[in-house]
Amino acid sequence: MSDRTKILETFENTYTKRDYWVKHIASEFTSLCPKTGQPDFATIILEYIPDKLCVELKSYKFYLQSYRNDGIFFESVTNKIMDDLVQKLKPREMKIIADFNTRGGISSVITVEYKQA
Amino acid sequence: MSDRTKILETFENTYTKRDYWVKHIASEFTSLCPKTGQPDFATIILEYIPDKLCVELKSYKFYLQSYRNDGIFFESVTNKIMDDLVQKLKPREMKIIADFNTRGGISSVITVEYKQA
Amino acid sequence: MSDRTKILETFENTYTKRDYWVKHIASEFTSLCPKTGQPDFATIILEYIPDKLCVELKSYKFYLQSYRNDGIFFESVTNKIMDDLVQKLKPREMKIIADFNTRGGISSVITVEYKQA
Amino acid sequence: MSDRTKILETFENTYTKRDYWVKHIASEFTSLCPKTGQPDFATIILEYIPDKLCVELKSYKFYLQSYRNDGIFFESVTNKIMDDLVQKLKPREMKIIADFNTRGGISSVITVEYKQA
Amino acid sequence: MSDRTKILETFENTYTKRDYWVKHIASEFTSLCPKTGQPDFATIILEYIPDKLCVELKSYKFYLQSYRNDGIFFESVTNKIMDDLVQKLKPREMKIIADFNTRGGISSVITVEYKQA
Amino acid sequence: MSDRTKILETFENTYTKRDYWVKHIASEFTSLCPKTGQPDFATIILEYIPDKLCVELKSYKFYLQSYRNDGIFFESVTNKIMDDLVQKLKPREMKIIADFNTRGGISSVITVEYKQA
Amino acid sequence: MSDRTKILETFENTYTKRDYWVKHIASEFTSLCPKTGQPDFATIILEYIPDKLCVELKSYKFYLQSYRNDGIFFESVTNKIMDDLVQKLKPREMKIIADFNTRGGISSVITVEYKQA
Amino acid sequence: MSDRTKILETFENTYTKRDYWVKHIASEFTSLCPKTGQPDFATIILEYIPDKLCVELKSYKFYLQSYRNDGIFFESVTNKIMDDLVQKLKPREMKIIADFNTRGGISSVITVEYKQA
Amino acid sequence: MSDRTKILETFENTYTKRDYWVKHIASEFTSLCPKTGQPDFATIILEYIPDKLCVELKSYKFYLQSYRNDGIFFESVTNKIMDDLVQKLKPREMKIIADFNTRGGISSVITVEYKQA
Amino acid sequence: MSDRTKILETFENTYTKRDYWVKHIASEFTSLCPKTGQPDFATIILEYIPDKLCVELKSYKFYLQSYRNDGIFFESVTNKIMDDLVQKLKPREMKIIADFNTRGGISSVITVEYKQA
Repeated sequence: MSDRTKILETFENTYTKRDYWVKHIASEFTSLCPKTGQPDFATIILEYIPDKLCVELKSYKFYLQSYRNDGIFFESVTNKIMDDLVQKLKPREMKIIADFNTRGGISSVITVEYKQA
Repeated sequence: MSDRTKILETFENTYTKRDYWVKHIASEFTSLCPKTGQPDFATIILEYIPDKLCVELKSYKFYLQSYRNDGIFFESVTNKIMDDLVQKLKPREMKIIADFNTRGGISSVITVEYKQA
Repeated sequence: MSDRTKILETFENTYTKRDYWVKHIASEFTSLCPKTGQPDFATIILEYIPDKLCVELKSYKFYLQSYRNDGIFFESVTNKIMDDLVQKLKPREMKIIADFNTRGGISSVITVEYKQA
Repeated sequence: MSDRTKILETFENTYTKRDYWVKHIASEFTSLCPKTGQPDFATIILEYIPDKLCVELKSYKFYLQSYRNDGIFFESVTNKIMDDLVQKLKPREMKIIADFNTRGGISSVITVEYKQA
Repeated sequence: MSDRTKILETFENTYTKRDYWVKHIASEFTSLCPKTGQPDFATIILEYIPDKLCVELKSYKFYLQSYRNDGIFFESVTNKIMDDLVQKLKPREMKIIADFNTRGGISSVITVEYKQA
Repeated sequence: MSDRTKILETFENTYTKRDYWVKHIASEFTSLCPKTGQPDFATIILEYIPDKLCVELKSYKFYLQSYRNDGIFFESVTNKIMDDLVQKLKPREMKIIADFNTRGGISSVITVEYKQA
Repeated sequence: MSDRTKILETFENTYTKRDYWVKHIASEFTSLCPKTGQPDFATIILEYIPDKLCVELKSYKFYLQSYRNDGIFFESVTNKIMDDLVQKLKPREMKIIADFNTRGGISSVITVEYKQA
Repeated sequence: MSDRTKILETFENTYTKRDYWVKHIASEFTSLCPKTGQPDFATIILEYIPDKLCVELKSYKFYLQSYRNDGIFFESVTNKIMDDLVQKLKPREMKIIADFNTRGGISSVITVEYKQA
Repeated sequence: MSDRTKILETFENTYTKRDYWVKHIASEFTSLCPKTGQPDFATIILEYIPDKLCVELKSYKFYLQSYRNDGIFFESVTNKIMDDLVQKLKPREMKIIADFNTRGGISSVITVEYKQA
Repeated sequence: MSDRTKILETFENTYTKRDYWVKHIASEFTSLCPKTGQPDFATIILEYIPDKLCVELKSYKFYLQSYRNDGIFFESVTNKIMDDLVQKLKPREMKIIADFNTRGGISSVITVEYKQA
């Protein structure tokens, strides 16, 4: 669990009686390419079935913003966001889709899924 | 079951012989953020297989309008609408998708499902 | 089976050797609201696997037009079209989706399915 | 000039040397129908060439929200917003387009323009 | 001026001090083809600069509905609506665009304009 | 004036008192390439201000269908349709836009205009 | 197998080691209505898993063009193309979707599937 | 006039009596970046009023293909195509719009116009 | 002229003989809100008629990136980019459109134009 | 494995603990038709679950560019890219969709899938 997970705040899920999906679509994610230092841009789609905790939306926005000046690869950042959120929320299920803008005529989408054992 | 379910009216389903889906797409839902008092906007998609009762459309519109000046979280309002409609209609199946407008670059969708035991 | 099914004409299916789907998308359906007398508008999507008979397209158009000045509810008209067509065509499978225009900010979709026993 | 113009705040235009257009597209305007009490929904597009003052964006949002529970006609609210903003900003030019959601199968757009004498 | 103009109601324009445009987009117009008796469907876009009178929206909806079972050509119905509204509202300017659905692979649009002498 | 103009029928314009536009959008035009014999496909948009005569829609459809098995170039067919319709209708103004499907990665649009002297 | 299958040419599939899908989307199909002689227009989507043979694209285009002046029903032409291609290619699987343009406000889609025994 | 203009063929304009526009939209243009050697991709829109000559479509396709392995800047290639076509066709008017794919998050459009003296 | 204009590089316009437009659409602009420190996102559309100089595309990308961690208002940044580019390129004409993402349900577009005296 | 696989570079997958999908959408693929020498254009969608290795994005771009002046059929190039990438990356799963531009009114899509034994 990275230091930046401290930014994430949670609130209690008061409807634990049923499985339901929460989806947050963040279209303004930006980080830096670790090779060239050039900015990358992505839409991050987070979907999860909460167990005891939901992620507080404003803190989640700040969490995503913390990557603004960090150099990190597409595959790494998507897996890392997953690891941080699973650690913090302990959700029943979670899915993250990171859809990166075109670079050199190629756009990239990374899709990671998690299911509680 | 909240007081506002009194607003909901029903009519008899005359085709109980088969399972069929009724979908109502209400694109003009608005409530208030319980933290900031700022208005939230959403499209509420209700889908259900009626058992003995169907929801009367105009009363359902008034029911949704009753949230206009109430402070309530995304996750709560979606689950609450589900609870109220299940209580009133006792449907064979029901699904509610609440798609909230962008706040701080993030839009949110809550999806709740119910199946008769 | 209602009187208006007399409008429906059929022709022989010459490819009974295989299951295949026929879909007719009629975007100009209109009837009246039985409560207010106001016109309703819908797109009616009919899909079926023919057995021995196919519906003749022009007669089907006239059949749908026969509702033009009738007062009838969304749920009823969709189930009634299904009953009439099943009676007439005895299809292997049939599905009807009726997508009604927005009224008071709410649009409605009724979906009915049938499978030969 | 109505009381609610007190909500509007301004800041100094530091580029008075040239005419340029500022456009704010507010897609979440809602007021009430003065006849039926039913909510109306609109997108309000404000365009203006600032003279000495620009409208502060957050205060403009609060100004628009002040109509939330007021009964007012389409034609009136559009002209009124124009009058209030002209009074407050004294712009070189201004245009307001108010695009109201469908009611009874009819959507409405009101377009008002102003030019400094 | 036809009899059906009696259906049209007006209200006073309280902003005669400026020219502004009112646009009503009615997507559910239907009449009959005078040759075949088959239903026609159109979107009627009415735009006008009011002088002393505005058209009341609900009465305008009823006016358009009065064509439902009348046989009338595309070119005639568009010019007739113009004549009726000019007679009733005496607007400063008016424009009507009638966009008819495809028949035999051809869709048709009739555009009529009027300017106060 | 070619022989095929005999297919075109007209009816009297009963609104000669004002200039108004009639537009017919025919999306199913097909002819043959005079070089290769391969079929070409186009959408033909006809716009005109009628003087004494309007073109009857069904006869216009048959007129366009008469090109089905003729070999003719893009530029020629568009100018020819213009010549035939001007000869027949003697319109106040006329515009024809012929939008041809992609061939070898290139689509083509021919636009011809006419104004009564 | 009809005479027109002689138009179809094939080439050897050099990747028989794996199942893969080939899809050809032909948006310029046209034939005649056997009742009225009027032209019909469709998009034909062919999908198949080749076994030993693939269809040569240019010959397939000529094959589809051979229907240009033939009168044939929607349901028949779709099943007939399937029969011809199955006979010629002996594919592992095949699917044909024929999507016909709107006639009298109704568009039609015929879907036929085949699987090697 | 470059050597590659020899590829361009022309045919006689038989409708010199009127000004009309010919537009060719070529969505598959590709050349190389003169700095990096990397391929660039563009849509080239050519519009012109022919005088005595029209450009033959197939030869124009070959002309555009002749840039496939040449290094040339956006601004240069657009002006050069204009110079070559003006020299060859001597049109009454001509316009070229070259719309280049995104590079580093920036897409570029070059627009050049010519009018006969 | 700000310090950051040093980032901008130019190259000679070799087609000064004619006025032509260069447009660069940069969809990945980001800066900070000077009030809240929150990131803003915009598409910057630059259009100009070059005189003696064109802006080198890569250096323009770096110029835009230099705002990444600066706090600056919508109206200011648009006018500032205009001032910097006019100073550097001395274009015949220039237009900048800055289209900012939605904040609190309101999106904003700033449009600035310049013409050589 | 062809010679051009030497162009492909890889990097270590540091998240082997979970199955996740990487998708690269390359919209600027071009090769030559082996029959006519004419250029073909396609979008290549690569999706895979990495095992120990991921493909380095820039080298993948160069790999695709290596086909620029090669004559190769649709079916062959798609299967060949699959063979090369499977050989190099040894992925858990892989899918390639190649969507080729319209030729003679027909566009083609080839879909190949691979699963580790």
